[in-house]
Amino acid sequence: MSATWGNKLKITIFGESHSDAIGVVLDGVPAGVKLNFKEIRKQMTRRAPNGGEFSTPRKEADNAEILCGVLNGITEGTPICAVIKNTNTKSSDYSQLKDVMRPSHADYGYRVKYNGFNDIRGGGASSGRLTAAIVFAGAIARQLLKKKHINVVSHILSVGPVKDERFATEIEKPLVERLSGSVLPLINKEKEDDIKEIIACARRDGDSVGGVIECAVTGLKAGFGDPMFDSIESTISSLLFSVPAVKGVEFGCGYDMTAMRGSEANDCWYYDRNGALRTRTNNNGGVLGGISTGMPVVFNVAIKPTASIFKEQDTVNVATHENVTLSLKGRHDPCIVVRALPVIEAVAALAIYQFVGD
Amino acid sequence: MSATWGNKLKITIFGESHSDAIGVVLDGVPAGVKLNFKEIRKQMTRRAPNGGEFSTPRKEADNAEILCGVLNGITEGTPICAVIKNTNTKSSDYSQLKDVMRPSHADYGYRVKYNGFNDIRGGGASSGRLTAAIVFAGAIARQLLKKKHINVVSHILSVGPVKDERFATEIEKPLVERLSGSVLPLINKEKEDDIKEIIACARRDGDSVGGVIECAVTGLKAGFGDPMFDSIESTISSLLFSVPAVKGVEFGCGYDMTAMRGSEANDCWYYDRNGALRTRTNNNGGVLGGISTGMPVVFNVAIKPTASIFKEQDTVNVATHENVTLSLKGRHDPCIVVRALPVIEAVAALAIYQFVGD
Amino acid sequence: MSATWGNKLKITIFGESHSDAIGVVLDGVPAGVKLNFKEIRKQMTRRAPNGGEFSTPRKEADNAEILCGVLNGITEGTPICAVIKNTNTKSSDYSQLKDVMRPSHADYGYRVKYNGFNDIRGGGASSGRLTAAIVFAGAIARQLLKKKHINVVSHILSVGPVKDERFATEIEKPLVERLSGSVLPLINKEKEDDIKEIIACARRDGDSVGGVIECAVTGLKAGFGDPMFDSIESTISSLLFSVPAVKGVEFGCGYDMTAMRGSEANDCWYYDRNGALRTRTNNNGGVLGGISTGMPVVFNVAIKPTASIFKEQDTVNVATHENVTLSLKGRHDPCIVVRALPVIEAVAALAIYQFVGD
Amino acid sequence: MSATWGNKLKITIFGESHSDAIGVVLDGVPAGVKLNFKEIRKQMTRRAPNGGEFSTPRKEADNAEILCGVLNGITEGTPICAVIKNTNTKSSDYSQLKDVMRPSHADYGYRVKYNGFNDIRGGGASSGRLTAAIVFAGAIARQLLKKKHINVVSHILSVGPVKDERFATEIEKPLVERLSGSVLPLINKEKEDDIKEIIACARRDGDSVGGVIECAVTGLKAGFGDPMFDSIESTISSLLFSVPAVKGVEFGCGYDMTAMRGSEANDCWYYDRNGALRTRTNNNGGVLGGISTGMPVVFNVAIKPTASIFKEQDTVNVATHENVTLSLKGRHDPCIVVRALPVIEAVAALAIYQFVGD
Repeated sequence: MSATWGNKLKITIFGESHSDAIGVVLDGVPAGVKLNFKEIRKQMTRRAPNGGEFSTPRKEADNAEILCGVLNGITEGTPICAVIKNTNTKSSDYSQLKDVMRPSHADYGYRVKYNGFNDIRGGGASSGRLTAAIVFAGAIARQLLKKKHINVVSHILSVGPVKDERFATEIEKPLVERLSGSVLPLINKEKEDDIKEIIACARRDGDSVGGVIECAVTGLKAGFGDPMFDSIESTISSLLFSVPAVKGVEFGCGYDMTAMRGSEANDCWYYDRNGALRTRTNNNGGVLGGISTGMPVVFNVAIKPTASIFKEQDTVNVATHENVTLSLKGRHDPCIVVRALPVIEAVAALAIYQFVGD
Repeated sequence: MSATWGNKLKITIFGESHSDAIGVVLDGVPAGVKLNFKEIRKQMTRRAPNGGEFSTPRKEADNAEILCGVLNGITEGTPICAVIKNTNTKSSDYSQLKDVMRPSHADYGYRVKYNGFNDIRGGGASSGRLTAAIVFAGAIARQLLKKKHINVVSHILSVGPVKDERFATEIEKPLVERLSGSVLPLINKEKEDDIKEIIACARRDGDSVGGVIECAVTGLKAGFGDPMFDSIESTISSLLFSVPAVKGVEFGCGYDMTAMRGSEANDCWYYDRNGALRTRTNNNGGVLGGISTGMPVVFNVAIKPTASIFKEQDTVNVATHENVTLSLKGRHDPCIVVRALPVIEAVAALAIYQFVGD
Repeated sequence: MSATWGNKLKITIFGESHSDAIGVVLDGVPAGVKLNFKEIRKQMTRRAPNGGEFSTPRKEADNAEILCGVLNGITEGTPICAVIKNTNTKSSDYSQLKDVMRPSHADYGYRVKYNGFNDIRGGGASSGRLTAAIVFAGAIARQLLKKKHINVVSHILSVGPVKDERFATEIEKPLVERLSGSVLPLINKEKEDDIKEIIACARRDGDSVGGVIECAVTGLKAGFGDPMFDSIESTISSLLFSVPAVKGVEFGCGYDMTAMRGSEANDCWYYDRNGALRTRTNNNGGVLGGISTGMPVVFNVAIKPTASIFKEQDTVNVATHENVTLSLKGRHDPCIVVRALPVIEAVAALAIYQFVGD
Repeated sequence: MSATWGNKLKITIFGESHSDAIGVVLDGVPAGVKLNFKEIRKQMTRRAPNGGEFSTPRKEADNAEILCGVLNGITEGTPICAVIKNTNTKSSDYSQLKDVMRPSHADYGYRVKYNGFNDIRGGGASSGRLTAAIVFAGAIARQLLKKKHINVVSHILSVGPVKDERFATEIEKPLVERLSGSVLPLINKEKEDDIKEIIACARRDGDSVGGVIECAVTGLKAGFGDPMFDSIESTISSLLFSVPAVKGVEFGCGYDMTAMRGSEANDCWYYDRNGALRTRTNNNGGVLGGISTGMPVVFNVAIKPTASIFKEQDTVNVATHENVTLSLKGRHDPCIVVRALPVIEAVAALAIYQFVGD
């Protein structure tokens, strides 16, 4: 099974790229929470295709209609179901793809798994479109976290070869606010033009680029998470790898730690001038033994270049059993990193809520 | 909760580093399987501390006593419980650590979470010792997979700055056999001396080094895995991040893909000379949309340098609320990458069995 | 958490009596199944209030709109979400009930649990209305079972003091067909008038009556079910007790067995004239040690009299902290046993599918 | 899967009647609880076969050895594993039963399910012996509940035709204490001799009798339980039906309510002289809409007569495919109701802890 995830806040996702609608059921939102719909709307808009410079030319309003669980804007404690209509679908674009497998897409695995009965239009259930449901759920989780003074923030760590800086050991509030308000959140703002150019260039070439998103959860106290199978890392990563195009996850310095010696890598504890317990570095990303340390929980995610490109590619026709070439048409993102930012933040919020939720 | 993991084959792990015993319950092993105890023993021995050049001086026999679920060497279909006694524990080594937090260990998070009632000796439940239970369970999962012609193999991709080669797109049987029989499995055998030297050097310095393990699952047909929350990547990564010291996970080329363009990164399908459907490259690591492609499932894991080092470190005493220095005593691994190999393979076997199991 | 149930076929239910809609997500329906919508419609209609002699005067069409998971009438293997609009709601009926607790309703427990934020109109999420979603899911489960030659059938075992006969040890096909086609399914048809009269009489008195439904699953071979926590009985009963008004469950002869001696109660095995292995009696209801025996799985369910009656009742106003009297208005069923039949059958189908599903 | 149950307090059970040991892993016991081992011992002894008048002649000490999770008698917050050795097994008693199916035992279903690889000695995993593990887990759950002023108590409601009285609407403390201290707990003590005689008589005849146990949970406040699939009734019943020989479950008046009219059956609320909110009757057994009302949670369980009797019975030999007769030997309980009392109480404690646990 695969549509349901979580424990304290359980989400069940449904829909395909070209079905009538997609949506999500959230079970476990406490009663009596006044929802900030503007904030939900803001997160949905960050993810929605808007025809802008970082996006597919397709536009989709992504209005989430709440069917139940909320009365007069206040949660009832019962499951919340939100439905998002699929309005701007061009199904004809996919007619050629019935038997021709798009490289680096889920087409072939799905075809085998579902004996060819899966809806291939728009990638069906493997479409990034379903992340709209995750963003909706995450937008609610964020509001629940905010009441506990926990914030989620992310920035672009790289697009193609262009790199931003990593989060510092301590993540200050002004930075959090600046990044949260930015369409292209970067710690080093000077990289903005390079990144825009890399994406524009890939678009001009009918090609695509990938990148890395770094995300931080601030305000989480020490002692959350469960040893062994419900570690903070296990919980976050299991959800991250449900997001299409994610190919890697690091906590803290991740792979860079493997080239360090223990004496460099270890995060030394100290009491700061206010008597707060902190570590000098945060190479471990705020998690030790699966449990939060009280430092920011920091992880990053590798997002591969969009698989849909306009360049001609070699592939196969599985009906005729022939090697063929394929030139994709339709509307595709040259780089999904920007639109993925709110998705990764939503994942972080949903995962952390599992530990701090009521 | 955290002690139970899995669906078709469910494992429940118990024990702490210095409790009477640790162990595991396996629920879901089919009836009628003649277990190969020699093979279980082999895997347990690969992980067990043996006092050798890559290990802690501590030795532990790690004999797993099977309490139930097996009759005359054949599985009954009912839960199998295996218990591994903790025989070689030196609890006195830990007396100084009651209030002094070891850097990069779980000490502080545990203390907060369990209000100080957790057993700190040997790291308690956060100890790498519990991976013996995972190796036991994995050794059984491997035997179940072998009946389905699925193999798990791994090698050291790096230790500190020394790097081995990645798996090629196709992984041939002789390589699998060579790696499986090797204590220090490397694709490029010439790196062996460098790696030994890096580890020996860290030991001499009272320090430690980390590394990367690359693991491949061969023989898995296309169409396994579940979209969204039970993707192959989600399942493998959730279990990997339960293994102490794991700080990152990549599938296929992982982070390297983020610097590629789509036209380079995409794995193009073709029919090979035998009519088999393959991809020219395997940058995606054999998984697309959460589902197997029929190519080897390839992932790698970042393992941080052992947190326990003999060099003096800055830290705090949380009872006296003071900044202090700490010099660890006891017996510690200078590099746990070698002993982690069978653990990572066990994780791969347990995860893949969730999809192909009966 | 509470909205999600099941393993092979997982259902997630949402909605309240007076929310915009209720619905269900089914995860785990295999791909390639041509759905019989007429059969789904038939089951929905059996449950829907129709203003008839056994029902509330309220009418509700209960059209289930399928949002995803089905393409051209054939399942895709991805989650199916069905939404049922709440069209005929009279919210004004409930204004008096904000603080006055209806006896034998969930009002008070909900108020405490949800701090008064739950929607009280129509009983909110505790409403029998949500069983429409269970019937929808069950209607699909039945179709999956039919492909495996497994049938679910039920009859009214009693209404108030009027009793029908129990199922015989062997349940013949003509009886199954007759009961399936009947609005008031009874083994002894002569009881029909008595039952109609009992219900009509309760309605005239502004009162209500309860009853017992006996349900049988035929065609299930021996060897299904899981010992201990996923016994057939555990699985069926956990779902039955999610149905409002259910207060008891028996398998086979249930309580009657407690007054028998072992020598009477034991079901003796024999090979019948066709060499089939059967039992002479089926006092155990086709389940032993949690596992099917190959005999029909037979259970029955106690359904209490509708809590909503028009007679004046003593109760309290929890706002004023006073003892008060209450006279309910609105539209209520004098006996929900008839409308509960398809719900109980749906539960049986969903539960059994957990064991035989692919 | 079937060996793991629960959420806040998760139990995993293992072992068979004649395996080396049986046992249980408890995951979720909070840290810092000083366990009362004498109380655990007391509950284990109530269930253990003692050779007395209500028991099989077999004696078993049922000492639970705790392997981990407890340090100096205080829980650590990590999983607790307890192992109970199987010391007094007479495996030779079962040699005749390899192919001859005992009536009303799980033999045949198990044989089919496990392809004959299950251990048949003593009933293998279907043995009542595994309830020792449930009693151990329940004994800990009870201690956790006691800290929240919640008590579990039960009495024999009937053995064969002899009936005790039901619990009154309010259950007073002296009664709870008297029943808790009694080997043969009865509200109406005058029934004691009749019950002893019924059991003795069945033993003399080589036969067996069943009975009903009524159980109450006192001190549970209103508002616990989850609507729909995690109702209090669903949770209790799913666990009850994992106990061998349970064939029926009622909450409150159960089946008797089906013969009442709503006006009789409804539990009317009132404020008592102390201003406490109570109901005049407790026909619903303290649960409405799946949620506690604040009245005692009352349920009862039908326990069938022991399937193992010494009288000759008709059955089959599945190897020779013949109808045969069977005369059982060995040591069997003439009535398991008395030994089942602590098991049913353990189930109640484990189930209620799911809702009130930390």
